[in-house]
Amino acid sequence: MTQEEKLLDTAGKIRSMEIRGAGRIATAAAQALKDYVLELDTSSLEEFDRQLRWAADSLLNTRPTAVSLFNAIKLVTRYSATDAQAAKEAVVNNADRFIKNSQRAVEQIGIIGSRTIRDGDTVLTHCNSMAALSVIGTAHRSGKRIKVIATESRPRYQGITTIGMLDRMGIDVELIVDSAARSVMNEVNLVVVGADVVTANGSLVNKIGTAQIALCAHEARTPFMVAAETYKFSPKTLAGELVAIEERSQEEVLETISQYRQVRVRNPAFDVTPRQYIDQICTEAGLIPPEMSYMIIKERLGWEL
Amino acid sequence: MTQEEKLLDTAGKIRSMEIRGAGRIATAAAQALKDYVLELDTSSLEEFDRQLRWAADSLLNTRPTAVSLFNAIKLVTRYSATDAQAAKEAVVNNADRFIKNSQRAVEQIGIIGSRTIRDGDTVLTHCNSMAALSVIGTAHRSGKRIKVIATESRPRYQGITTIGMLDRMGIDVELIVDSAARSVMNEVNLVVVGADVVTANGSLVNKIGTAQIALCAHEARTPFMVAAETYKFSPKTLAGELVAIEERSQEEVLETISQYRQVRVRNPAFDVTPRQYIDQICTEAGLIPPEMSYMIIKERLGWEL
Amino acid sequence: MTQEEKLLDTAGKIRSMEIRGAGRIATAAAQALKDYVLELDTSSLEEFDRQLRWAADSLLNTRPTAVSLFNAIKLVTRYSATDAQAAKEAVVNNADRFIKNSQRAVEQIGIIGSRTIRDGDTVLTHCNSMAALSVIGTAHRSGKRIKVIATESRPRYQGITTIGMLDRMGIDVELIVDSAARSVMNEVNLVVVGADVVTANGSLVNKIGTAQIALCAHEARTPFMVAAETYKFSPKTLAGELVAIEERSQEEVLETISQYRQVRVRNPAFDVTPRQYIDQICTEAGLIPPEMSYMIIKERLGWEL
Amino acid sequence: MTQEEKLLDTAGKIRSMEIRGAGRIATAAAQALKDYVLELDTSSLEEFDRQLRWAADSLLNTRPTAVSLFNAIKLVTRYSATDAQAAKEAVVNNADRFIKNSQRAVEQIGIIGSRTIRDGDTVLTHCNSMAALSVIGTAHRSGKRIKVIATESRPRYQGITTIGMLDRMGIDVELIVDSAARSVMNEVNLVVVGADVVTANGSLVNKIGTAQIALCAHEARTPFMVAAETYKFSPKTLAGELVAIEERSQEEVLETISQYRQVRVRNPAFDVTPRQYIDQICTEAGLIPPEMSYMIIKERLGWEL
Amino acid sequence: MTQEEKLLDTAGKIRSMEIRGAGRIATAAAQALKDYVLELDTSSLEEFDRQLRWAADSLLNTRPTAVSLFNAIKLVTRYSATDAQAAKEAVVNNADRFIKNSQRAVEQIGIIGSRTIRDGDTVLTHCNSMAALSVIGTAHRSGKRIKVIATESRPRYQGITTIGMLDRMGIDVELIVDSAARSVMNEVNLVVVGADVVTANGSLVNKIGTAQIALCAHEARTPFMVAAETYKFSPKTLAGELVAIEERSQEEVLETISQYRQVRVRNPAFDVTPRQYIDQICTEAGLIPPEMSYMIIKERLGWEL
Amino acid sequence: MTQEEKLLDTAGKIRSMEIRGAGRIATAAAQALKDYVLELDTSSLEEFDRQLRWAADSLLNTRPTAVSLFNAIKLVTRYSATDAQAAKEAVVNNADRFIKNSQRAVEQIGIIGSRTIRDGDTVLTHCNSMAALSVIGTAHRSGKRIKVIATESRPRYQGITTIGMLDRMGIDVELIVDSAARSVMNEVNLVVVGADVVTANGSLVNKIGTAQIALCAHEARTPFMVAAETYKFSPKTLAGELVAIEERSQEEVLETISQYRQVRVRNPAFDVTPRQYIDQICTEAGLIPPEMSYMIIKERLGWEL
Repeated sequence: MTQEEKLLDTAGKIRSMEIRGAGRIATAAAQALKDYVLELDTSSLEEFDRQLRWAADSLLNTRPTAVSLFNAIKLVTRYSATDAQAAKEAVVNNADRFIKNSQRAVEQIGIIGSRTIRDGDTVLTHCNSMAALSVIGTAHRSGKRIKVIATESRPRYQGITTIGMLDRMGIDVELIVDSAARSVMNEVNLVVVGADVVTANGSLVNKIGTAQIALCAHEARTPFMVAAETYKFSPKTLAGELVAIEERSQEEVLETISQYRQVRVRNPAFDVTPRQYIDQICTEAGLIPPEMSYMIIKERLGWEL
Repeated sequence: MTQEEKLLDTAGKIRSMEIRGAGRIATAAAQALKDYVLELDTSSLEEFDRQLRWAADSLLNTRPTAVSLFNAIKLVTRYSATDAQAAKEAVVNNADRFIKNSQRAVEQIGIIGSRTIRDGDTVLTHCNSMAALSVIGTAHRSGKRIKVIATESRPRYQGITTIGMLDRMGIDVELIVDSAARSVMNEVNLVVVGADVVTANGSLVNKIGTAQIALCAHEARTPFMVAAETYKFSPKTLAGELVAIEERSQEEVLETISQYRQVRVRNPAFDVTPRQYIDQICTEAGLIPPEMSYMIIKERLGWEL
Repeated sequence: MTQEEKLLDTAGKIRSMEIRGAGRIATAAAQALKDYVLELDTSSLEEFDRQLRWAADSLLNTRPTAVSLFNAIKLVTRYSATDAQAAKEAVVNNADRFIKNSQRAVEQIGIIGSRTIRDGDTVLTHCNSMAALSVIGTAHRSGKRIKVIATESRPRYQGITTIGMLDRMGIDVELIVDSAARSVMNEVNLVVVGADVVTANGSLVNKIGTAQIALCAHEARTPFMVAAETYKFSPKTLAGELVAIEERSQEEVLETISQYRQVRVRNPAFDVTPRQYIDQICTEAGLIPPEMSYMIIKERLGWEL
Repeated sequence: MTQEEKLLDTAGKIRSMEIRGAGRIATAAAQALKDYVLELDTSSLEEFDRQLRWAADSLLNTRPTAVSLFNAIKLVTRYSATDAQAAKEAVVNNADRFIKNSQRAVEQIGIIGSRTIRDGDTVLTHCNSMAALSVIGTAHRSGKRIKVIATESRPRYQGITTIGMLDRMGIDVELIVDSAARSVMNEVNLVVVGADVVTANGSLVNKIGTAQIALCAHEARTPFMVAAETYKFSPKTLAGELVAIEERSQEEVLETISQYRQVRVRNPAFDVTPRQYIDQICTEAGLIPPEMSYMIIKERLGWEL
Repeated sequence: MTQEEKLLDTAGKIRSMEIRGAGRIATAAAQALKDYVLELDTSSLEEFDRQLRWAADSLLNTRPTAVSLFNAIKLVTRYSATDAQAAKEAVVNNADRFIKNSQRAVEQIGIIGSRTIRDGDTVLTHCNSMAALSVIGTAHRSGKRIKVIATESRPRYQGITTIGMLDRMGIDVELIVDSAARSVMNEVNLVVVGADVVTANGSLVNKIGTAQIALCAHEARTPFMVAAETYKFSPKTLAGELVAIEERSQEEVLETISQYRQVRVRNPAFDVTPRQYIDQICTEAGLIPPEMSYMIIKERLGWEL
Repeated sequence: MTQEEKLLDTAGKIRSMEIRGAGRIATAAAQALKDYVLELDTSSLEEFDRQLRWAADSLLNTRPTAVSLFNAIKLVTRYSATDAQAAKEAVVNNADRFIKNSQRAVEQIGIIGSRTIRDGDTVLTHCNSMAALSVIGTAHRSGKRIKVIATESRPRYQGITTIGMLDRMGIDVELIVDSAARSVMNEVNLVVVGADVVTANGSLVNKIGTAQIALCAHEARTPFMVAAETYKFSPKTLAGELVAIEERSQEEVLETISQYRQVRVRNPAFDVTPRQYIDQICTEAGLIPPEMSYMIIKERLGWEL
């Protein structure tokens, strides 16, 4: 395969969702850009830049609304150089740094977030988030006896993946249907969930159902924490862009609806939790209030309007 | 079969949940008591009373926490008579009246409740309630163009039954997962749900998930109405009895958990919605605030502490 | 004029709003019914009843949504008699009693409500309500030094009438635009407003703007009291009827809109305040929580579904 | 002592607070009235009535704002009789019934309220209420393992009495300062307090600090229950009377303030908890929402405006 | 006219409110300072500085509480230079930049803010704000079908200006009285208003009535957005200065009050909306949560305590 | 004494709480470090650094959870130098600057915070905070007539110290028990309290009872302000560290509990107020919303995760 073919191969896998999950997409794109520029053979900075742009756009167009992809590409392709060789080196360094930082971010979030969990606590989580599980797992490994309540997370039942992972860690788990979150909330000491996107005004876009759980936590004075790597924060929302809420296929909810005349399925993949219900966001840059999203975007991701 | 055997047969069907649903249980018990006393052949009032008590207790013990069963038996077996014949007649009349009233209550609730729906409204419902569907269906038949959003109602998916019934009525329906209720709430003009029990202090005990939806409705200033026949109101809660929240089997949620070491399933069948989130309760006795539960119990059901 | 013509004359004045205001309409209808039956000359109870029904319907149809009119007619025409003469006497007595009670209700409300005002208090009122002003005036006459803040009550500026009446009573008044209610709310010790309708579930239908003021009072922990004669309570809402919110003419808001192509005026006369924002309703039957509306309807007005 | 002297002796003890506590005052007054009429020796009903009025007023004037005293006297002196002997008997019967009912009410409240407590619960209480302790004690005696958190209840430290009584019952107790209620609230399953007065609109007047605790319970979704005999409900508040909040002496708070020039002590004995923060009131007539106060007053105490 | 006279002429127009509106005042002051320094003929930096201070103070004193004027003058007169000529150039450049940026800010706000509006949305606005109308107009021009509900904005009816401007843009408009905002709020998808001042802790000072609308939006879960150029943010509030709420003349509300003895008019021009009710502020620097006000002040305006 | 002995002497006094109070501890530690390094006699930077670390650790270990001590030591020991002499000078300068800044911070907070108080205001305060009293005292000295309501602040009655200080300033004071805060809240224009710690997500850790008062202020729309020097902000909370809530001795609450079998005393010294109830924090760096805590930590204190 040429470097173009290889890059398009990765792009194809992202588009087809063979590669999926905010973190894996971002890492794959960074790696693809690195591989691509390593094989670029031009001494013209202009030409280098043109080819890098093509590669970046090819990747970006696969999931135009995925903020982690956008941030990864933006961070990897940002350089100031006076010749092609220096530019190439900068991009390669950016990619290496992005990949390493992504990996370390989850660990760092685990360390920071786990400090907020006390021995004997009950933690509720929703869906299946690496960052949230890093918080829970780190607390468990540090010797705190904790119990986790996990929602099944309809329609795709990611909660089943979650309980499997927690079980393998040796953590006591209770599985509930999503509707039972309020019923158990008075027993919960902390809710921790992941993030698909954090917006410039501190809202959380995450798996459908998250906002209801946050509301229930707020009603019961139970702290609600988001575990999110900083590349989940969206610079574009600062410029007013709404986060598109993906509408997934009917089949995820109901195998067939052909027997009905007037029934349709609505299957929004995400919902929006307002910052008023979020006590803190645990990032690799520290435990911040959601209103600090603007600073994270500015300091870590950069933006221009 | 003797009359005893017949009565025990009905009791058995209620216990095994062959006969299920608050309304059907109540009606079946009333019918069984009627059939039973019709065949009683005693001129001693004392003897009549003893046998009636046996029959009542046999039925009551099948589902000791089902308030509709309790109310049906209490209303049917209440009489003042000086001889066995008069007592028998009173019980038969009570049973006939209870059965007829139960049937009419759903219609009456439909008529009253449907007046609160306006042309063009979007109504959200949860689970599968005859009384709630009577409200929606009556509004539709009266010519109002309405749309219904129905939750699937995990774990038993009663929402699928609901969308089938609405589809047959010719009403436009959107099916959502339970977690999506908050996402669509700003589009909803009215939430209407049924009731398993209404307590003396105006709380609603209903299908798991109801309380979360009520909370979301409250947050969005969307009216939340309960459709409940008066025999769903619980006299015993006036005396402090807690409504037992049935914990259903693990299999309803997850087929098997044997592969896990530390996972258990919690499957509460109901939850409790506080009166603060309930705008009104639509009964066959009128549209009342939940705080009026006490009066309904006193006037319609009677109680002694 | 024949008795029919006289009755239709009153009906016409109510329809044309020559007679207006919930209290005056109710009193005029009661008087018209009394005058009408006094001149009825039939010994047939059936005939009497037929003619009374005609008169009642003639009056009722003038303002089919006015609850005070509905209640007045219902209370006046309710009788049990075995001959026409007794029926006539009953109706005349009913009418006399209704008229006298209406007059005394405002006084009684003033006495009861004024007890909740303390020396030095600041009271806010909206629109122009006789019952609310009775509360304020009685407090003033009892020697309490009070200040009133009155809203102008757009679009019809009834607040200007209110400040004139208060000024004549010798009470210090501050006039504000409706938008300034929240700005002054932290200084206010009590909000007191009248009622057009109180519904069976305890909601208040009153002059547009009332609900915003109630919300502001709730936000600032300022008590919000409704002053309402019991004939303002609506038996029909118990049966699910929505209170029709009258949409008044555009001219009340803006003299002309002909110069615009795409502008229309919305001019709802009333809004709905939920019971959650109402601390108490001061009626001639006592100071009650809004949830007691059902009992007032039942005990004072009667209803059949 | 003459019967007049004996009655005045009791009145004096109530005035000097030698006899104190809502229940004890009420019982003492009922007993004093009984003793007084038993020694009345008149065959004139008019004379009997005059003397009874004198006795009632003598007692009432000792603590004109104590609702339990008012209710006791009203219930004891209510009779319809055609001769003095029958009147005397009625009053004696009333007094006996009142005293017996008062004693039974606390037991009955204990039975009803204790049903809402579950095994393993933590209950928070404030001040020192017989009715609240009856709820807790009955739950404990029924075999439920419970823990109680008690506030010290400044300024008079009634909480110290409470912990002594709980300790003697064999119940685990934690004592906190009043300021720590919110800190522990997320661990609490139920708050239960007594009542000095319940008003017609469902507000609770109770020991200073109660309202703050109710607010904290509301914030944390912790149920808040009032334990109150029905004679704590105030008929006069239905007529608009405000409950006077007694201002107690400075010395209760601070031994001396003479060393300061500009310091004064404010020492309100009670505060007012709005019905919105009260989940239920446990009376001997059942577990009711606070809005039902009106019905309790009407059915149990009677009133005329 | 000398340059002094010209500057004083502009100052006079600002004082007399011939020049009014936060944006126009700021621009006029910047232009006046530019014109003034262009004609200054001194080679002494000290003298230049003295004269510039005089001019700045002359302008500032016309409306000492207008934050836009304060910010404009501060930004224009900030320079570091070693000779008078360089200082003059710096001030002229500052003025040009300020004027250009002010003009572009409104456009930029329109672009950013309009992205948050979706096709089919209903937008509510209050008073007459260029920035808010830029958001609405840009959304309309981008092809989104929107409807606007505009309040009349008593006492000065700026809403009438607003509906005229929207009508000319070809946008469907509904005019309501200010009191009707809550009545229509459940139909509204977005509230957008302008700002007179944004404080360091994120409060909004704006036209009287804004806070009530924000409260109603919050109650109904309707997003509330402020459109504000960054020069509306107040550095002085960081140092604790309260924003003076101008009390306007009685005549704006009521033509004459001479006929009353005890009536006065209160006419506050602005009210304060707490940050809890503000979802986001749309500035030319992006869409931020109100808590970010501090950063805007620091980065864009500078401050020293 | 050697310099080591002197340093350990100060450390001992901090440990034994002879030196107590966040400000005094911080200042004493800074002074001790200065005195210590002034007597260090080494030309080796490495040796200097080792000895400085020892001294810092010796102080830090006395109260490992006191954030003011942590911040003081961190700010004093931060230097970049290439030789021991330069390092020593840097540390001495740091210490002098820290001490001077601490003293000025309280004054500056007084000036800034006092601007938010208006003539005639009633201010409520809790416990005994120098910063809060600086706000109140500065307002008083600037000629504003104010009244202060002070809580007694059980268990240690610091409120008694507060009323003494206010009395000496000539300010009118009312003393209340902690439980009475809600009762008086509707009369209060501003609550101002100090801080033990401000966390990275904007929570306030302060004297037990503070959170209840903040909740009551929020309920009544009364502004709640925290007066806090920036060295009260905790960098460690950014890394997830929970602020340890000191549990004080039983004797502070109750002299003896030996007479009880099942009573224990819980005596948490502090509680946590969430940022939602805090309107602003008055620091020497300005009046900020609590969400800005992150920026204060970053700009003023520095941190590394």
